[in-house]
Amino acid sequence: MALLSPLLAPAVSICVSIIGVGLVGKQVVAQLTSPALAPLFRIVSLSNSRHTLALSPAAPALDARALLALLPPSSAPLPTSSPHPAASYAPADPAALVRSLAHTARESNKHTILIDCTSDLAVTEQYPAAIAAGLSVVTPNKKGFSSSGELWKQIVDAQSAPGAGLVYLEATVGAGLPILSTLRDLLKTGDEVTKIEGVFSGTMSYIFNEFSKPAAPSAPSSGPKFSEIVKIAKENGYTEPHPADDLSGSDVARKLTILSRILSINPSTLPALPSLPEGYASLSTETLIPAALASIASGDEFVQKLPEHDAEFDQLRAEAEKEGKVLRYVGVIDRQSGVVKCGLEKYPAAHPFASALSGSDNIVAFHTARYAQRPLIVQGAGAGADVTAMGVVADAIKVAERYGAKVHL
Amino acid sequence: MALLSPLLAPAVSICVSIIGVGLVGKQVVAQLTSPALAPLFRIVSLSNSRHTLALSPAAPALDARALLALLPPSSAPLPTSSPHPAASYAPADPAALVRSLAHTARESNKHTILIDCTSDLAVTEQYPAAIAAGLSVVTPNKKGFSSSGELWKQIVDAQSAPGAGLVYLEATVGAGLPILSTLRDLLKTGDEVTKIEGVFSGTMSYIFNEFSKPAAPSAPSSGPKFSEIVKIAKENGYTEPHPADDLSGSDVARKLTILSRILSINPSTLPALPSLPEGYASLSTETLIPAALASIASGDEFVQKLPEHDAEFDQLRAEAEKEGKVLRYVGVIDRQSGVVKCGLEKYPAAHPFASALSGSDNIVAFHTARYAQRPLIVQGAGAGADVTAMGVVADAIKVAERYGAKVHL
Repeated sequence: MALLSPLLAPAVSICVSIIGVGLVGKQVVAQLTSPALAPLFRIVSLSNSRHTLALSPAAPALDARALLALLPPSSAPLPTSSPHPAASYAPADPAALVRSLAHTARESNKHTILIDCTSDLAVTEQYPAAIAAGLSVVTPNKKGFSSSGELWKQIVDAQSAPGAGLVYLEATVGAGLPILSTLRDLLKTGDEVTKIEGVFSGTMSYIFNEFSKPAAPSAPSSGPKFSEIVKIAKENGYTEPHPADDLSGSDVARKLTILSRILSINPSTLPALPSLPEGYASLSTETLIPAALASIASGDEFVQKLPEHDAEFDQLRAEAEKEGKVLRYVGVIDRQSGVVKCGLEKYPAAHPFASALSGSDNIVAFHTARYAQRPLIVQGAGAGADVTAMGVVADAIKVAERYGAKVHL
Repeated sequence: MALLSPLLAPAVSICVSIIGVGLVGKQVVAQLTSPALAPLFRIVSLSNSRHTLALSPAAPALDARALLALLPPSSAPLPTSSPHPAASYAPADPAALVRSLAHTARESNKHTILIDCTSDLAVTEQYPAAIAAGLSVVTPNKKGFSSSGELWKQIVDAQSAPGAGLVYLEATVGAGLPILSTLRDLLKTGDEVTKIEGVFSGTMSYIFNEFSKPAAPSAPSSGPKFSEIVKIAKENGYTEPHPADDLSGSDVARKLTILSRILSINPSTLPALPSLPEGYASLSTETLIPAALASIASGDEFVQKLPEHDAEFDQLRAEAEKEGKVLRYVGVIDRQSGVVKCGLEKYPAAHPFASALSGSDNIVAFHTARYAQRPLIVQGAGAGADVTAMGVVADAIKVAERYGAKVHL
């Protein structure tokens, strides 16, 4: 049955400015310039840490490869002459970019989205100005929402002015998984969210899924070594260059801060959650970095010395096994007790966090007044450039719909 | 941290007309008139199968109880005088209602949502006219999307005219679970959905979760009886009044038809899916109604005679157990093979459909190019008045955002 194209009336054209063209940013460019979405979005600038490429929206649209080729790498100097008639260059300056985008948006009466694909706190500090100037902000960058309470308040408050834009952050938690949108639908339709619990880090998920695999029959009392799993994870790029950046739990703490803050700005009859004035740093977070290795600056050295601490992790696992349970590094927001924390927990084999989880999947359980007997669960890959870009682009489509695009079914 | 109210600039007011005030319709009225959403929505009419109550939007808003009290039950005659100055009455007539709503929407320049909380095919036949007249349609009623291909085509086509409204149907599959919205985000951002597989019926979920529970130690070769589980499910209201309406698989087939049709109107490089000209009736659906009981019109008689067929179900279970598997009634859309079907399948104990499912939960797995190694999974209660209403109201909020409401975070 060949019915109409699912993208209806794409005559609306939304301008998009992208800061950060790493793995995620490149995927965002690819998805936005795909045949289905190209009529809806026009990329008007691309920035890396040193350069901003501006593109005249009057010129014919370019495909992803051509667009990305026009931005010199941050290691190269700013081009003195333009290789394309529609392209012009300036030094990267997020504040100046926001002013320029706001000016052009007012002049052209076209809505503009600022997409931040960096992990740079300094970029997020421009969100309040961007929102106040009427731009939408779409981002997978957790920093602005999980750092100081002051910045978070500025971002949220900026949205309330008439003519202000809104901020879209689906991809900050679980990448393309419908986690924040589900939380929003629960809250806005008046459900009471009593508890959110989940495995929010793909790296932590992988490590503990491997760590709780049954021991070899030849050595039933031992299981895989924690240090060995971390070493393999690092070699395969599943961890940050320095694995301690994952093992600290701060990535999970940032995601939990975002969920907790969203809960806090919505009405509830349950006790208030902790205020987290310093964001993720205010949160009770169990680190898995052995104290003796806390000051090692090199990821390689860290991995080399980690085997000295395998016995500590073996003991934790043995204690869990004695109870018929497995270890998982989880984030928990419990509104009844007011507890917000990240750390190791033990789950019985039949629990979805134990039985249903594999690979580097995230899993999040929403316990609510409506989903009281059994939680609403979302599970799947929670990291990776393509699924993170999906979360960003799905948000951009929602912005386009607010400004008149008909995209449905 | 008390930040701004999460409902920003609620000055936009969207008119809402609700047809069907059963369990779901009443919950929709309750959620729409809650303090958080009341500024955004104004209910302008309520209809049951015999009467339509029209409410002047100029009068002060009423709460859910007062609104519902103004609509006489369908068993009562049409009131000859109005008990409230803002209320007026007419015989229920969906076609006339759509004309009247469209007229008022044009005159007042206020957007209007038609919410269909019936399960009536005749109401869905008014969707094309409603959409063409610029109304949005929001509904948990599967009939319009899972019956004839002609009606489906009319509904989809109506959306493409300039000024036409759109149809929102999240609650038709999985009630409040983010299933259609997730499918939409996957498709619109250019992912390739290769397979959708799920337990889509709460009743079937309950029956087979119970049926695969381990046998009592005293009688290891036997397990719970199929007929006994159906009997208990009927007594607890988990089945339709006539359990054959669940066991036929047609509810699952309707949901699968909707998913399949949404896939079919989106671009894909995979083989075309079956065209389903008669909707769910065109779909390969395994019935669990024993042939000998197919013509029994009474639910009670059906349950009485079902024990005569327990041996057939026992045998199916024994065959699954021999392979270390459990039975689940699932819907599958496999784009590689072009198969769309509903029926019993066997799953190994470690599969999420076997290990992670309990109660009457739905579970849906999206296998895609991006979620290739492991699927994206959504799980939770997929039926019930409050979660179905949540799906409806979350859709209504999305409509309000298209027409200028700022609802975010």
